[in-house]
Amino acid sequence: MLKNPPLNSREKTKSLLLNLQEKICNELENIDGKGNFKEETWLRPEGGGGKSRILKDGSIFEQAGVNFSEVYGKELPESIVSQRPEAKGHEWFATGTSLVLHPKNPYIPTVHLNYRYFEAGPVWWFGGGADLTPFYPYLTDVRHFHSVHKNACSSINVDLHKVFKPWCDEYFYLRHRKESRGIGGIFYDYQDGSGPLYKGKNNKSEAFKFSEEIGDLTLRWDDLFSLAENCGDAFLKGYIPIINKRINQGYSAKEREFQLYRRGRYVEFNLVWDRGTIFGLQTNGRTESILMSLPPLARWEYGYKNEKNSREDLLTQIFTKPQDWFGDENLEKFCIENNIFD
Amino acid sequence: MLKNPPLNSREKTKSLLLNLQEKICNELENIDGKGNFKEETWLRPEGGGGKSRILKDGSIFEQAGVNFSEVYGKELPESIVSQRPEAKGHEWFATGTSLVLHPKNPYIPTVHLNYRYFEAGPVWWFGGGADLTPFYPYLTDVRHFHSVHKNACSSINVDLHKVFKPWCDEYFYLRHRKESRGIGGIFYDYQDGSGPLYKGKNNKSEAFKFSEEIGDLTLRWDDLFSLAENCGDAFLKGYIPIINKRINQGYSAKEREFQLYRRGRYVEFNLVWDRGTIFGLQTNGRTESILMSLPPLARWEYGYKNEKNSREDLLTQIFTKPQDWFGDENLEKFCIENNIFD
Repeated sequence: MLKNPPLNSREKTKSLLLNLQEKICNELENIDGKGNFKEETWLRPEGGGGKSRILKDGSIFEQAGVNFSEVYGKELPESIVSQRPEAKGHEWFATGTSLVLHPKNPYIPTVHLNYRYFEAGPVWWFGGGADLTPFYPYLTDVRHFHSVHKNACSSINVDLHKVFKPWCDEYFYLRHRKESRGIGGIFYDYQDGSGPLYKGKNNKSEAFKFSEEIGDLTLRWDDLFSLAENCGDAFLKGYIPIINKRINQGYSAKEREFQLYRRGRYVEFNLVWDRGTIFGLQTNGRTESILMSLPPLARWEYGYKNEKNSREDLLTQIFTKPQDWFGDENLEKFCIENNIFD
Repeated sequence: MLKNPPLNSREKTKSLLLNLQEKICNELENIDGKGNFKEETWLRPEGGGGKSRILKDGSIFEQAGVNFSEVYGKELPESIVSQRPEAKGHEWFATGTSLVLHPKNPYIPTVHLNYRYFEAGPVWWFGGGADLTPFYPYLTDVRHFHSVHKNACSSINVDLHKVFKPWCDEYFYLRHRKESRGIGGIFYDYQDGSGPLYKGKNNKSEAFKFSEEIGDLTLRWDDLFSLAENCGDAFLKGYIPIINKRINQGYSAKEREFQLYRRGRYVEFNLVWDRGTIFGLQTNGRTESILMSLPPLARWEYGYKNEKNSREDLLTQIFTKPQDWFGDENLEKFCIENNIFD
């Protein structure tokens, strides 16, 4: 039986996610030094609204979009009811913070974060995650991003990361390209503190396998709240050091072109596969806020092929596939030999 | 009762659509003067294959992609069976030619064409159409494109265009933007020569309304074959004169920026709403050929707004809404007054 959330659950999650938006925006402005976030608040006619913040043409960020929203209503859309039939017929509430950052320098990865909370009558759940999409990746950066998020998960329960890491690989996968969007991170959804951790539908997946091994886990609402808090806080710790490390790496038109080409894949993922985006667009969400995730500039090229073993080729050979970033010695050796370790 | 197609129906349609590809490519190379089509033939592991032709960096075309494919198999995908249950359990055959042209000069519209033929056991149908997406439209160009396609339809039956014009407006609509992709053209699907012309699902649409007024129509296989032939031939007649008229119009960075911004909408339509694209990507189609429709370069800008009554604003005010391009006197007057008539 699902336990009731605390009485002030909506206020608590709203304030957590508003603070997260605020902290992240402050820090991003700080490191950028030039760009400033502009805020637009908006109301949803059916109930609720949001705060969209965008920084354009910064010194580091070509575009940085950070959204907060809090929406509610009487009738859940069918696409959610079909996932969670217990929610049917209840008034509902959802709040979330999400961001996508598109840096200028191709050596700094694109990154995405989203944390959200949902209630409908007796049903509630937390979801979220963060994932990194480098164009010219280095293994230490990848490890840093993962280890910070692993620590955040493990502070709640040591088993979580075993499931949330492969769940992220599974979610951010472009099936039509047979590749991952990037090097992953963590992803979780429908977390209500009961049953197995993995609530997805693919029972051949790694996330499912580990989740079965772990078995049913009981987490309190407060644990899952703290998970969102810790993971949200992990984001800047995971990303800012990568910016600092790569910001002075020079690049030419060639690297820029490759970045724009790879940004095309980002567009493809978000418009074809991302359930959140598609759901938002098809249910009359605020289009401009939803599509803030799209890059300011992207390109497509028919039949594009990387030069074999080029720096660009290493991205697709190694960093757009799910990997054991820490334990795989051959991977480490390969990265050292190819000067993409550190 | 659906009549059987002629015995050589597959060869006939295949050859029609291969010729269409050939004629169009020749003429486009001809007018471009610089770019050449490169061809890649490919085989589909499950049966059939295609010829993809692409011209890059021409003098007129930044990118022009023209695809032919002929595919077949034993089991139809569920998404088609659900539309046409009679086709279930039969071996099937599909052939089509499609193109998307992305000119450099923002005064020359982007354009799309697709004609296709389908058979599965006792079931067969034709589908297709062509639609124009100008960035800086002129009413005479719009009228020219429409009238050429209207004539092509009317050469088969005078009622067809009444349904195929609004069906095109209905199909190429970005619901999340509340706007049409462009100024339309014609679109039809599931034409098997029986019943009402409109086979879509929206019984509040204009296409449905006119189709009901017309009532059941009987067309022979040969009529529908000729329809595809005539409409296919209409394409160059409709488009080439627009190129010739606009090619010498100069443009600045501002118009180019606007074109790239509007190309973002083209990407949004194709990846979010175009059933053909989504179907192809989700069913293991040839990704590079399917995504040849995407522009070589596109941009997004959060909160972009046209200057009121600017040339750019006129596009969205007038030319991304379904219109009566011929009969509306106010529209004509407005276009004359704003120097966007001719």
